[in-house]
Amino acid sequence: MTNPTAAMLVIGDEILSGRTRDANMHFLAGELTRLGIDLREVRIVADDRDAIIAAVRALAAGFDHVFTSGGIGPTHDDITADCIAAAFDVPIDVRDDARALLQAHYDRAGSVLNDARLRMARIPDGASLIENPVSTAPGFTLGNVHVMAGVPSVFQAMVASLLPRLTGGQPLLSQSYRIARGEGDIAGPLAALAADYPDLSIGSYPFNQNGVHGANIVIRGHDGGQLDAAMVRLVALFPA
Amino acid sequence: MTNPTAAMLVIGDEILSGRTRDANMHFLAGELTRLGIDLREVRIVADDRDAIIAAVRALAAGFDHVFTSGGIGPTHDDITADCIAAAFDVPIDVRDDARALLQAHYDRAGSVLNDARLRMARIPDGASLIENPVSTAPGFTLGNVHVMAGVPSVFQAMVASLLPRLTGGQPLLSQSYRIARGEGDIAGPLAALAADYPDLSIGSYPFNQNGVHGANIVIRGHDGGQLDAAMVRLVALFPA
Repeated sequence: MTNPTAAMLVIGDEILSGRTRDANMHFLAGELTRLGIDLREVRIVADDRDAIIAAVRALAAGFDHVFTSGGIGPTHDDITADCIAAAFDVPIDVRDDARALLQAHYDRAGSVLNDARLRMARIPDGASLIENPVSTAPGFTLGNVHVMAGVPSVFQAMVASLLPRLTGGQPLLSQSYRIARGEGDIAGPLAALAADYPDLSIGSYPFNQNGVHGANIVIRGHDGGQLDAAMVRLVALFPA
Repeated sequence: MTNPTAAMLVIGDEILSGRTRDANMHFLAGELTRLGIDLREVRIVADDRDAIIAAVRALAAGFDHVFTSGGIGPTHDDITADCIAAAFDVPIDVRDDARALLQAHYDRAGSVLNDARLRMARIPDGASLIENPVSTAPGFTLGNVHVMAGVPSVFQAMVASLLPRLTGGQPLLSQSYRIARGEGDIAGPLAALAADYPDLSIGSYPFNQNGVHGANIVIRGHDGGQLDAAMVRLVALFPA
């Protein structure tokens, strides 16, 4: 059995200009790892219609799931929903169930559901809604694309609403081991070990802390027994 | 005059699994903004030969500059240099000047320049080296692709070596203004303001701090006078 694959599309000028440091990718990566969905690629594009449509089409064709963040609020720079509809060549308009959610929310808050807020009820034809327990305005799933908000607290809540609906696979397990020797000294035996375990991913991440050069070796895979066996060999190669 | 465009390619399983949070993208975004090179897209791919080659080709064809981070160390999972050579269809081998740099470095350190370390002197034909004042093993530029290390301290030092060689444009300027009103209340006038300044990018980033809902409005552009004029109108629309 192979795990479902996924890509993420982060939409927002503010990430590319360096103003904001994205937090949603790191969060989603951890959640998908636990669920057994393999995140294979992330793209970050600007609030640009052509760039968003091209990225959605490429990623939706290449992976089992695509998760997007950003661009579904009420302001003029929120163009994601329209771009998703265009990428799938389907119409988009205000939908009654989404409008009803917003109407109830703004009634409770004593605010008006004006034209700007009503934009958040624009849902492409054929989509299903993703619940937003933080601020009501829903995300949606169209085909294999899951469209969520960019504000981290809302993104995380939408991910929590969405993931139980998806079929995962074997969680990606990992073990790590710290070796206080330079990567160049351990690379040969490490490569031989990696060659013996083609189903595992063995990564070497160098560090230099308080004058100590070394590397954290991370072994990842879906089979816990194999992982244990490789780790035993790793420790024997490079005793602490 | 339009600014040069750029994309970044982050290479590394550890980012996609959620183990590590990437720091290089945010750093590079800020540096390019100051230099007047417009970062338009970022992609993150795994340590996978086909994925790296496909991304390098797509980005090199689409943007003036491509900056990569990760995968140029001495271990088996460091495959970036070979993938870049394959993407450009050029040979790759150990190069004398890169080998001499490493030889001197390991002589000073009393270490041996073994086969693993020598891999870091593999440079595609036709590339120029990017200096690495932190740990010596160089990056390189091939065509419009600049290949750098993933360790943040080394990445930052390589960026500092590289950027003075590149021709920038007009720095992307930005001003921001905090409005303590919901996005839905300000979206209409904000859209009209944005329509009046098509050369500026006006972004709205909602926040919810200590019970206060509001939005930070960020105006970005290359013309300081236009930026000032738009900001004056924004403040008049939504007085503090």
